[in-house]
Amino acid sequence: MISERIKSISPYKTEVTKASVRLSSNEFPYDFPEEIKQRVSEEIKKIPLNKYPDPTAEELKEVLGEFFGVDPQNIVLGNGSDELIYYLSIAIGEVYLPVYIPVPTFPMYEISAKVLGRPVVNVPLEKDFDINLEESLKKIAEEKPVLGYFAYPNNPTGNLFSKRKIEKIREKGVFCVIDEAYYHYSGETFIEDALTREDTVILRTLSKIGMASLRIGLLIGREDIVREIDKIRLPFNITYPSQVIAKVILREGKEFLEEKIKEVIRERERMYNSMKEIEGVEVFPSKANFLLFRTPMPAKEIYRRLLNRDVLVRDVSYMPGLNRCLRVSVGKPEENDKFLEALYESIKEV
Amino acid sequence: MISERIKSISPYKTEVTKASVRLSSNEFPYDFPEEIKQRVSEEIKKIPLNKYPDPTAEELKEVLGEFFGVDPQNIVLGNGSDELIYYLSIAIGEVYLPVYIPVPTFPMYEISAKVLGRPVVNVPLEKDFDINLEESLKKIAEEKPVLGYFAYPNNPTGNLFSKRKIEKIREKGVFCVIDEAYYHYSGETFIEDALTREDTVILRTLSKIGMASLRIGLLIGREDIVREIDKIRLPFNITYPSQVIAKVILREGKEFLEEKIKEVIRERERMYNSMKEIEGVEVFPSKANFLLFRTPMPAKEIYRRLLNRDVLVRDVSYMPGLNRCLRVSVGKPEENDKFLEALYESIKEV
Repeated sequence: MISERIKSISPYKTEVTKASVRLSSNEFPYDFPEEIKQRVSEEIKKIPLNKYPDPTAEELKEVLGEFFGVDPQNIVLGNGSDELIYYLSIAIGEVYLPVYIPVPTFPMYEISAKVLGRPVVNVPLEKDFDINLEESLKKIAEEKPVLGYFAYPNNPTGNLFSKRKIEKIREKGVFCVIDEAYYHYSGETFIEDALTREDTVILRTLSKIGMASLRIGLLIGREDIVREIDKIRLPFNITYPSQVIAKVILREGKEFLEEKIKEVIRERERMYNSMKEIEGVEVFPSKANFLLFRTPMPAKEIYRRLLNRDVLVRDVSYMPGLNRCLRVSVGKPEENDKFLEALYESIKEV
Repeated sequence: MISERIKSISPYKTEVTKASVRLSSNEFPYDFPEEIKQRVSEEIKKIPLNKYPDPTAEELKEVLGEFFGVDPQNIVLGNGSDELIYYLSIAIGEVYLPVYIPVPTFPMYEISAKVLGRPVVNVPLEKDFDINLEESLKKIAEEKPVLGYFAYPNNPTGNLFSKRKIEKIREKGVFCVIDEAYYHYSGETFIEDALTREDTVILRTLSKIGMASLRIGLLIGREDIVREIDKIRLPFNITYPSQVIAKVILREGKEFLEEKIKEVIRERERMYNSMKEIEGVEVFPSKANFLLFRTPMPAKEIYRRLLNRDVLVRDVSYMPGLNRCLRVSVGKPEENDKFLEALYESIKEV
């Protein structure tokens, strides 16, 4: 009695392979220092475990609002951005109307649409991974999507799409979801649009800045839009421990975070420069905390050779336009060194 | 650009009113003892906060499987049962096909359908709050719902529907979701059907047995059904802290839990008997951790008078067939005493 629509879906693939250098999930390379973990554990002890969490997560939204520079009433919280993506695919336009998605990109956009049986308009990116505007406008005129997802910067390609191209697409009546999961590594944002326009929201997350364990995503938008999306939110979607832990960290771990984010950005540039030097490796510039690269060999083979050297990366070669490509997250300096060495040796091994 | 469907929805109402005796949300009355909270806080300190949780929650599912007497492969985990209800309303049958819901009941069933624009077939319960079978079969023949939600015991009425009536409805091709959130207070279950049939699943939760803070719900069903529902699950829907805390409690807090569950059942019977003695109060028998009652006054007035005495209950009089009705959760003995006294005085005050 399961619908055919669901039976035909391929689920999101998660990585559970073991390795001592794990650079596959774009996680933040550092856990928080001992004194913050001590504070976390003190606060956890105070939770009445038998009680429901605050359904409005009022205090957490205030702290997040301060951290991200917006008012609490401009925020919808999700159990990770993933949940917010589901809500957007449900709430924006009728579900029989298509969703525009430039590809390759983060797979959850398409999964959220397919789960609902929503048609998807996929338009391949250009060679430089920017949006193919001409083809997009043609497809939009033909198929009339009302909702579009833009990872900004894009995952797994690492680049920022041209803002002007997104605006052109928006002018055609496409509600734009700008997923700024990697904002802290790019510094670029559509936040002003999100706060003033009825056709734009942005997504942010704590997952890429040290709190992936907690599953906290944010949708930021105009108050009237936020109010509507918040209506379909599961009433207690942010757990009590996650609310408590995020508050401690955002209040007391901010300096640590800011310093380490800068390190990740420096490391990204160092890795990029080193990878460029490896013969046969084509590495693409990135505004995120990961790098996309192509080698002369099948990606599966490089993946295996890296794993033999105890380094785990993500094989993204199954995605359109990414043949022979893999994605590596920026880790701690010593992890990045191990990766660089392993990559060099894996290529040489031929 | 928000769909009209969403604009017309009334969200689930949560209770944030302050009171020293809170008997409004059917929470478990006890937090766990100091030694368990100490163990929880030790385990929390070990979490790498920067890492994603186990997407399959493998270890937690093993512990839960043992606790609930099923194999891990018969379980889908949700961020509370609420999330699983959303998934079921998405996955079972095409979304333009109706959902059967006997009312009054837990509002999330209907909300999940409406969010998707799914038609709903509501059939009012009989006077004794059992299913109106004749009317249900008539409506089912006319409107052909493919999915039905049965809170078992029902919330907020507290009774168990007749098993035979549910079976009759199932024979008409309705996939039956048996929500056993209050199973520990009723002892009655459809688990055998869920494990063997393709048209029945049950829901369980940790929320009513001391872990509402963690948001962990379970769908239990046949392996092939579970595999399909699991495909649309958000990949990291159970947070790392919730996985860790639930494991500690289910392993080390089981005896405490079992003892206190028995106390709640005893207290429910004591409250029932005491309420029956209050003139003007009609109290209904319950197989859950709450009691439904009716008074001669408007429910809002009783709600207010109880709140004046620092006791918070749930006004459910807006639900079909429940005029002048309120719902009170079973609390600690001393909380129940305060409620009983406050109720007695509130009625006398007339």
